[in-house]
Amino acid sequence: MAHVEVHRDDIELDEPTLVEGLPGIGLVGKLAADHLVEANDMVHYGTARCDGLPEIAVYSEGDPTVRSPVRLYADAEGELLVLQSDAPVSPDAAESFAGCMVDWFRGEGVTPVFLSGMPAERETDPSLYGIATGEGSALLSEAGIDSPTESGAITGPTGALVHEAQRVGLTSVGLVVEADPQFPDPEAAGTLLEAGIVLLTGVEVETESLAKQAEEIRQTKAQLAQQMQGGGEESTSARPLGFQ
Amino acid sequence: MAHVEVHRDDIELDEPTLVEGLPGIGLVGKLAADHLVEANDMVHYGTARCDGLPEIAVYSEGDPTVRSPVRLYADAEGELLVLQSDAPVSPDAAESFAGCMVDWFRGEGVTPVFLSGMPAERETDPSLYGIATGEGSALLSEAGIDSPTESGAITGPTGALVHEAQRVGLTSVGLVVEADPQFPDPEAAGTLLEAGIVLLTGVEVETESLAKQAEEIRQTKAQLAQQMQGGGEESTSARPLGFQ
Amino acid sequence: MAHVEVHRDDIELDEPTLVEGLPGIGLVGKLAADHLVEANDMVHYGTARCDGLPEIAVYSEGDPTVRSPVRLYADAEGELLVLQSDAPVSPDAAESFAGCMVDWFRGEGVTPVFLSGMPAERETDPSLYGIATGEGSALLSEAGIDSPTESGAITGPTGALVHEAQRVGLTSVGLVVEADPQFPDPEAAGTLLEAGIVLLTGVEVETESLAKQAEEIRQTKAQLAQQMQGGGEESTSARPLGFQ
Amino acid sequence: MAHVEVHRDDIELDEPTLVEGLPGIGLVGKLAADHLVEANDMVHYGTARCDGLPEIAVYSEGDPTVRSPVRLYADAEGELLVLQSDAPVSPDAAESFAGCMVDWFRGEGVTPVFLSGMPAERETDPSLYGIATGEGSALLSEAGIDSPTESGAITGPTGALVHEAQRVGLTSVGLVVEADPQFPDPEAAGTLLEAGIVLLTGVEVETESLAKQAEEIRQTKAQLAQQMQGGGEESTSARPLGFQ
Amino acid sequence: MAHVEVHRDDIELDEPTLVEGLPGIGLVGKLAADHLVEANDMVHYGTARCDGLPEIAVYSEGDPTVRSPVRLYADAEGELLVLQSDAPVSPDAAESFAGCMVDWFRGEGVTPVFLSGMPAERETDPSLYGIATGEGSALLSEAGIDSPTESGAITGPTGALVHEAQRVGLTSVGLVVEADPQFPDPEAAGTLLEAGIVLLTGVEVETESLAKQAEEIRQTKAQLAQQMQGGGEESTSARPLGFQ
Repeated sequence: MAHVEVHRDDIELDEPTLVEGLPGIGLVGKLAADHLVEANDMVHYGTARCDGLPEIAVYSEGDPTVRSPVRLYADAEGELLVLQSDAPVSPDAAESFAGCMVDWFRGEGVTPVFLSGMPAERETDPSLYGIATGEGSALLSEAGIDSPTESGAITGPTGALVHEAQRVGLTSVGLVVEADPQFPDPEAAGTLLEAGIVLLTGVEVETESLAKQAEEIRQTKAQLAQQMQGGGEESTSARPLGFQ
Repeated sequence: MAHVEVHRDDIELDEPTLVEGLPGIGLVGKLAADHLVEANDMVHYGTARCDGLPEIAVYSEGDPTVRSPVRLYADAEGELLVLQSDAPVSPDAAESFAGCMVDWFRGEGVTPVFLSGMPAERETDPSLYGIATGEGSALLSEAGIDSPTESGAITGPTGALVHEAQRVGLTSVGLVVEADPQFPDPEAAGTLLEAGIVLLTGVEVETESLAKQAEEIRQTKAQLAQQMQGGGEESTSARPLGFQ
Repeated sequence: MAHVEVHRDDIELDEPTLVEGLPGIGLVGKLAADHLVEANDMVHYGTARCDGLPEIAVYSEGDPTVRSPVRLYADAEGELLVLQSDAPVSPDAAESFAGCMVDWFRGEGVTPVFLSGMPAERETDPSLYGIATGEGSALLSEAGIDSPTESGAITGPTGALVHEAQRVGLTSVGLVVEADPQFPDPEAAGTLLEAGIVLLTGVEVETESLAKQAEEIRQTKAQLAQQMQGGGEESTSARPLGFQ
Repeated sequence: MAHVEVHRDDIELDEPTLVEGLPGIGLVGKLAADHLVEANDMVHYGTARCDGLPEIAVYSEGDPTVRSPVRLYADAEGELLVLQSDAPVSPDAAESFAGCMVDWFRGEGVTPVFLSGMPAERETDPSLYGIATGEGSALLSEAGIDSPTESGAITGPTGALVHEAQRVGLTSVGLVVEADPQFPDPEAAGTLLEAGIVLLTGVEVETESLAKQAEEIRQTKAQLAQQMQGGGEESTSARPLGFQ
Repeated sequence: MAHVEVHRDDIELDEPTLVEGLPGIGLVGKLAADHLVEANDMVHYGTARCDGLPEIAVYSEGDPTVRSPVRLYADAEGELLVLQSDAPVSPDAAESFAGCMVDWFRGEGVTPVFLSGMPAERETDPSLYGIATGEGSALLSEAGIDSPTESGAITGPTGALVHEAQRVGLTSVGLVVEADPQFPDPEAAGTLLEAGIVLLTGVEVETESLAKQAEEIRQTKAQLAQQMQGGGEESTSARPLGFQ
């Protein structure tokens, strides 16, 4: 319960599934999670208050209200949560962040679905497989999600989250999808939703807009590369958040 | 009350609005805040004594008295404060600085107005929008300041201040203005004053001298670029402070 | 006993010999250790839970179950252990890792065999010699393993392990083999097994598949060099683990 | 009293003025302070024992006795002190050094005179101005030393000293002189003495030898640039100290 | 007594002189100390167990026994000690190492002789001078060793040792010899022995083999330069120790 500030006491969590959407390779997790929030009108349920998270002030077009960068969204039934982040979690903070979040997951009976891209140059649809901690293998089987087609490791903040879930024995699953190593990859994010999250949770979500985004990105890759170069932290500035 | 050393017990604060002027993109916040202090004859009210602030000795032309780099200025009525800084707050100190200052703001009933530039190449007047924490949205509406025209994030020390204000629920507003990404931008600072601070506080301030500065800068950009390159901290030196 | 999580209470350790397989020059230790685990059907006995170990989530082809990166494998008799690691131990963590593991070795009556490559351009079979702590010299003599043919030092995490074993007086041996300084060297790993581990432990192990790997590597060195370049830790990704 | 080891109990301090001589731009402070010690036959009164000071062993031509790098010299009357340093104080140690020294200054009734160069390309005699903390402005007025002709900041260890003096309200003055940004500048050091320290303290000191040094330096700038390049700290070496 | 593990209780220390042999400029200290150990058949008396010393495992040609990198050797009479190190002490550890060792020196009545090279391009025999702490000046006079011919500073781990000896008032001497700034310099090491250590201690030692080494090095400088380039610490490897 600690470390997550809950804003909506009217929503009662009912052993929810949580879709994790930290930025990573191809932004696949973030794109899938953000899309789920927007397409399904999920509400801002809580805010992660873990040590080491970036202390930046985030806002959205048309709304002056400032939010913290790492937030939880919920559906009305309290059965689905999304972890949305507008900034990367630094490697130094990954371990304490993982401990902070997994602790809360256990306390609230949350089953997380972690998302990761696997860098790949592909010409066909992106392939996807699942990994699991605790009793997660059964969830993958029920959903008909394949086992890994190769040995591998998930690193970074999502790796720390999966590692911590494994360490404490929390049931979770992870979805690994082939993704563009350089550019945002909405097509791979769509695969995470259609061939993973929908099968695991039964949630309904259209993915046409992601397909449209994928088309746009194909046309503007050079421009995006420039926009994604981060600036230093010393001088204060506001930055546009293109993918929200 | 902690962490701010007050020099003027004769001035009683009356739920003041504070204009924050840390250095950042285009130096817009610093230029606007410094101008407010000078044009309105505000007095040196207090000094920030937060951990991690730069330990340098600042002085002004014509006056041998040394001051600390991060100071608070006040008007005679105790209704307006300005946070003036002669040196950037380092990223490492941003978090503790934000906690230190916001703590004092709450204790004294201060409503902060945070200032940030948004890098932009522009040909028309710089556009401006507002963001808010706590009950700040109402203040923006009353002043007729627009909501964000894009999604974004404020980073750096000012980002940490806004984040902390949001975290503790302090009412504050932030003003984001288009600004030159490379050079000091007195024109954008003028917009912060005229289209933001004046509307929020009712304070009167001329901005002609800023317009004049803007003209001068257009003529001496190359020279300024050189002057702004910071030196190392290991060897002691005195540096001119060009914008005061 | 602390710091190693045991998963198989059905296996009773019987003063086992442990083969250490951390990644290093030519990956010789890792290749030899991994081969021993696979060729001899050893089971996942325990997981190292020492401070500073990489918090990544590891999985294998065909099995969704996530594991931690540093693990202990055992044979059915509890006479042979292998320390397998899927990621390098960072220099900063080496000292505390060494203390953590050697402490457990002492408590369980484990005799470690440490493995290290010695960079060498060679045209003949790789040469090998042994080093020792505690009563380890006698073990080398019994096995007919030569003394060092040069003065040297073992550095890195394995160096810290040997150093710690020496410091506390634990009996252990170290095997140093000539190895390719740039590429994985399964031939040198085969020498560690045949001319070292087999003689010390009496374990039976085929090394033909290592010879085959060596042949493959000779043909694909350029490709491997690229695959082994590690990525940053900030962004999450899944990486293939080629040598498992 | 803490943190300064006193070697000469026979000298009783009589509210002394202290001339600070840390290395900085143009080495002006060090050159002036060292000259004062030598020309006036001041004696080694004490040694600074503050955390973070460089742990190096200093010796002089013709005398095998090792000294610490940061020392205090005194005249026989206990009215003049000089702080002499043979190595720069690192930025990381500047804050604690400043606290350590200013604490001692207060306890002993010391009035410090801080020295700093201001980088300038000049063709005439170097100009000088004074800054002050506590009641220092009066001392500057009495001595007829000008107020700053520009706004500025003193950074580095001397900046930290002045800042700390200001913070605790200790009376002190600072002298800022135009100095060569690249090479030792004995001429500027002479100005510090003649147009500053002599006026403030009434001490008598010849500056002809500094003028001679200035002439020598003009002839050997290239050679000096090389000699001043510091080496790494990892490997032990003895280095000549050219300006003592 | 703390921090040094003694292996030879049969040797009783008799107010010994200790020759320090840490790696530094020209490896002069290490070469002289190692030569003293080997030529005089000194025995491994103890091991330094100070915080921050490199945790590597050292071994010698023909002997599998692992040792720690920083060790003390003694003669049979307990009148001469040598501090031998097979790896550099890092700058971060220098201060605590110095405290640890000097503490032990005081407890055991040890008089250290510190050794340092002074970078010099020379054509004649290397010149040497002595420095001193405590009552060390008298020892230099008795031995007929010259005072410094220039002002200077000893930096690095040896500098920290001399500094600490000075701070606590321990009697010690330091020998500074002209040395090759780039390559091992056995000739300068020979001068340390013949014109310094022999005169101070009365120990007998041949230096012909050092002269022979000097000749070899003149012929293979390019090769040595390559061998001395250290590798990273992350990956484990064994390295040959050429000068033992």
